[in-house]
Amino acid sequence: MPVTLADLAARIGAQLRGDGSAGVLGVAPLETAGLQDVAFYVNPRYRKALRATRALAVIVAEDDLAHLPEGTAALVAAQPYVAFAKASALFHRELSPPQGLHPGAQVDATAQVHATASIGAGAVVGARAIVGAQTILHPGAVVLDDARVGKACVLWPGAVVRERCVLGDRVILQPNAVIGSDGFGFAFDLEGESGPQHRKIPQAGIVRIEDDVEVGACSCIDRATMGETLIGRGAKIDNLVQVAHNVRVGALSLLVAQSGISGSTELGQGVILAGQVGVIGHLKLGDGARVGAQSGVSRDLADGETVSGSPAIPHREWLKQSAAQPRLADLLREVRKLSQRVAELEKERRT
Amino acid sequence: MPVTLADLAARIGAQLRGDGSAGVLGVAPLETAGLQDVAFYVNPRYRKALRATRALAVIVAEDDLAHLPEGTAALVAAQPYVAFAKASALFHRELSPPQGLHPGAQVDATAQVHATASIGAGAVVGARAIVGAQTILHPGAVVLDDARVGKACVLWPGAVVRERCVLGDRVILQPNAVIGSDGFGFAFDLEGESGPQHRKIPQAGIVRIEDDVEVGACSCIDRATMGETLIGRGAKIDNLVQVAHNVRVGALSLLVAQSGISGSTELGQGVILAGQVGVIGHLKLGDGARVGAQSGVSRDLADGETVSGSPAIPHREWLKQSAAQPRLADLLREVRKLSQRVAELEKERRT
Amino acid sequence: MPVTLADLAARIGAQLRGDGSAGVLGVAPLETAGLQDVAFYVNPRYRKALRATRALAVIVAEDDLAHLPEGTAALVAAQPYVAFAKASALFHRELSPPQGLHPGAQVDATAQVHATASIGAGAVVGARAIVGAQTILHPGAVVLDDARVGKACVLWPGAVVRERCVLGDRVILQPNAVIGSDGFGFAFDLEGESGPQHRKIPQAGIVRIEDDVEVGACSCIDRATMGETLIGRGAKIDNLVQVAHNVRVGALSLLVAQSGISGSTELGQGVILAGQVGVIGHLKLGDGARVGAQSGVSRDLADGETVSGSPAIPHREWLKQSAAQPRLADLLREVRKLSQRVAELEKERRT
Repeated sequence: MPVTLADLAARIGAQLRGDGSAGVLGVAPLETAGLQDVAFYVNPRYRKALRATRALAVIVAEDDLAHLPEGTAALVAAQPYVAFAKASALFHRELSPPQGLHPGAQVDATAQVHATASIGAGAVVGARAIVGAQTILHPGAVVLDDARVGKACVLWPGAVVRERCVLGDRVILQPNAVIGSDGFGFAFDLEGESGPQHRKIPQAGIVRIEDDVEVGACSCIDRATMGETLIGRGAKIDNLVQVAHNVRVGALSLLVAQSGISGSTELGQGVILAGQVGVIGHLKLGDGARVGAQSGVSRDLADGETVSGSPAIPHREWLKQSAAQPRLADLLREVRKLSQRVAELEKERRT
Repeated sequence: MPVTLADLAARIGAQLRGDGSAGVLGVAPLETAGLQDVAFYVNPRYRKALRATRALAVIVAEDDLAHLPEGTAALVAAQPYVAFAKASALFHRELSPPQGLHPGAQVDATAQVHATASIGAGAVVGARAIVGAQTILHPGAVVLDDARVGKACVLWPGAVVRERCVLGDRVILQPNAVIGSDGFGFAFDLEGESGPQHRKIPQAGIVRIEDDVEVGACSCIDRATMGETLIGRGAKIDNLVQVAHNVRVGALSLLVAQSGISGSTELGQGVILAGQVGVIGHLKLGDGARVGAQSGVSRDLADGETVSGSPAIPHREWLKQSAAQPRLADLLREVRKLSQRVAELEKERRT
Repeated sequence: MPVTLADLAARIGAQLRGDGSAGVLGVAPLETAGLQDVAFYVNPRYRKALRATRALAVIVAEDDLAHLPEGTAALVAAQPYVAFAKASALFHRELSPPQGLHPGAQVDATAQVHATASIGAGAVVGARAIVGAQTILHPGAVVLDDARVGKACVLWPGAVVRERCVLGDRVILQPNAVIGSDGFGFAFDLEGESGPQHRKIPQAGIVRIEDDVEVGACSCIDRATMGETLIGRGAKIDNLVQVAHNVRVGALSLLVAQSGISGSTELGQGVILAGQVGVIGHLKLGDGARVGAQSGVSRDLADGETVSGSPAIPHREWLKQSAAQPRLADLLREVRKLSQRVAELEKERRT
């Protein structure tokens, strides 16, 4: 599907500098882009690659135009990375299996699957479950009884939506993502039938996932003990993330890989957890709060607060601490010497 | 299934204060409970909610009776949280598919599946595997050859029990939990057939899981190199937990989400690992040892020892350190000034 | 399959000391080995077990011969652990389902599955996908459209290979491992159709896995945004590991459980990440670099560099810091006292 540069510029909302009649075949990185490819530039780390690129055109911000090689067309955009996302989407064709039920699909007679949905080999839809228009269940995806999956969702192989959970529209579940597993709720019973036991608290609630959410591979979102665990509109969750029961994740939040949120904690809108972060339970993280990688959050965060470390402290404090940290061993020596010098002075004084 | 408050009190072992004839429809949180719901109270954090609740009755400890709103019935229990667990179980109906084999189930001819077991669409039972009475394999659960699954177990979609592993009774595997994956065992062979290589050590052992264990979504328990990896009776494992080969987890232990235990380590009874904890290999953690969130354990722990930090130290020490930590930067400055003052004194002395 | 000790010695490249005619039935740990078992010894931690073993023979290094109980045969090897791996492989029979397609397998008509491959119940092979000779897809494994799986691979239940990804020969995917999930790539678009949104960047690339790689249970390897995510020959990846888009992992590297590597980072050959390590994006870790457990790597590492801590620093520095750390609280007290003593001296001087 070749388009002209002029077409492309129009479709991604960029201003063209150069010959609009040239044909574009696709997008590619600066380093490997060929004469019919469009690349993009936004990170100064790649300026050298920009200068050497053989791309037909590069998507750039106005300010970076000067760095383009001579003869290279430019697609100038206020948000170059967004313009690139749009360009890439034009050329990329997602895997799209045929509509309808694969002969090997297992759909319960009482389920309501839209005629334009695609249910793959070995995918399962349980009793009374609902699957919306244009939604794709790839092979091996499972939607259990009474669950509801909206329109234009994509469930990759092995993704599981347990009973009664609800997904909005355009939700993507990467392979082996789990929605609605039981929360980790037990009451320690000293007087169990055969001695002390952890008595299971029924996890009677559900998970509700709003529109435009993506959940990464092998990430787990537990159902609520009572009520709902909620993932807000447009939030994006990376791989191997744990979201415990009754957590609320605000719209547009980003949870990077291997982070975990304990029970009943609430994240505001646009919260960012970098990779491998842990957040304890029953906290409130304000809108736009940001947490650095590998941090452990053990207190509420204000709107826009940025923290790092374990336990997490304001990011600036943490930078200061991290800088001071390597000097501790020397400091110990220094104080020992200082103590000797003072002792010497004290001794002289007495004599 | 409405029951009277008096019935409910009897069934959960609580003492009723109030009108026993009122009908109860279910359990609910203090905040949302209606006039036919029973709520519970145990955490002082929710005292305000307790005072404002519209619940018919609240499960509480004797000492908290005074905080109930006037006219609200009380179900007084020595272990309120346990009483709540029992009450909730009375009203909650777990998803229970029909007994027998779903037409889309794939059960090997040589497998022994009890007539009262339920094998869902796309679930697989391998050769000579045994599945006990009342056990449920939800769609897509897999039990491989020669594995044994006890009575009244629940395997959620995508849960995998590999060949020869053994599960006791009432074991629950959340979706995509993995029992019996190969341990991470390789011998670095400098003289491999085509250069250096990591030569795989066959992981010839199994995993044995005792009665009443629960394993969370996407948690992985590796089979032993030789012998058994063992999860003791009543232990509860949260999501995304890693248990390496030849580990032994004692009865009633709790492993919170994203924790990991390296090979051959032994946990006593009732050990608690909070979230994102790591434990290195070949250690012994005594009965009742507790490890704080995000800690890294690199030495044996005594019975009842409580540790935090990475590397983990006694929890009290860790609290002291954590308090001192933020003062390091100031300390550096202070010592520098002190050094100047001492130098000044020394200089004067000489003059 | 009993073999004689002499046979065994020959087959594992060891020198026999003792009666070569004795029959061997298997391998076993020192503690439990019986009169027809071969054990091995390499870790001094187990010297006591060595001295008490009832094994027929023990695989040992020359230097450790003296510790063997009298009458116990020895299989002397330069690399005892490697020799043990070979011995164990001789006696261990991996689960090997029959060749061909199980009646419950779902193989697309356009897929090319080698006649000697084994496709289990509920396993799925997509359109135009290729599965090589001797490869096993256990029940519930999924290979999507246009993917290529080499010879003698083993895909355990629930393992997923997404569209177009490429696996070499002898690759092992443990249960629920995910190859080719979408990378976590979003452009924040302030001018989305209905307000700000995270606009998905198509993840148009693939994952390429070279020969002899093993990927652990529930580990996730994201496909590249453009181009390839690459796992080099003979690398071994443990459970619950996250490898982000466009990462390159060098040959023979070892990634221990629950580690994570952010986007576009490159690991050289033979890099070792211990458990629960995090590495940020766009870094280069040199050949043979080693990272201690729970560390966080935020800068490039030189060849052979060994680091620990978060943020990670040279391992020796980290040891020093870790030793100094517990003394900080005392140091604060000491400096306070010292300051008083100096003040006293200053006061006296003035008088």
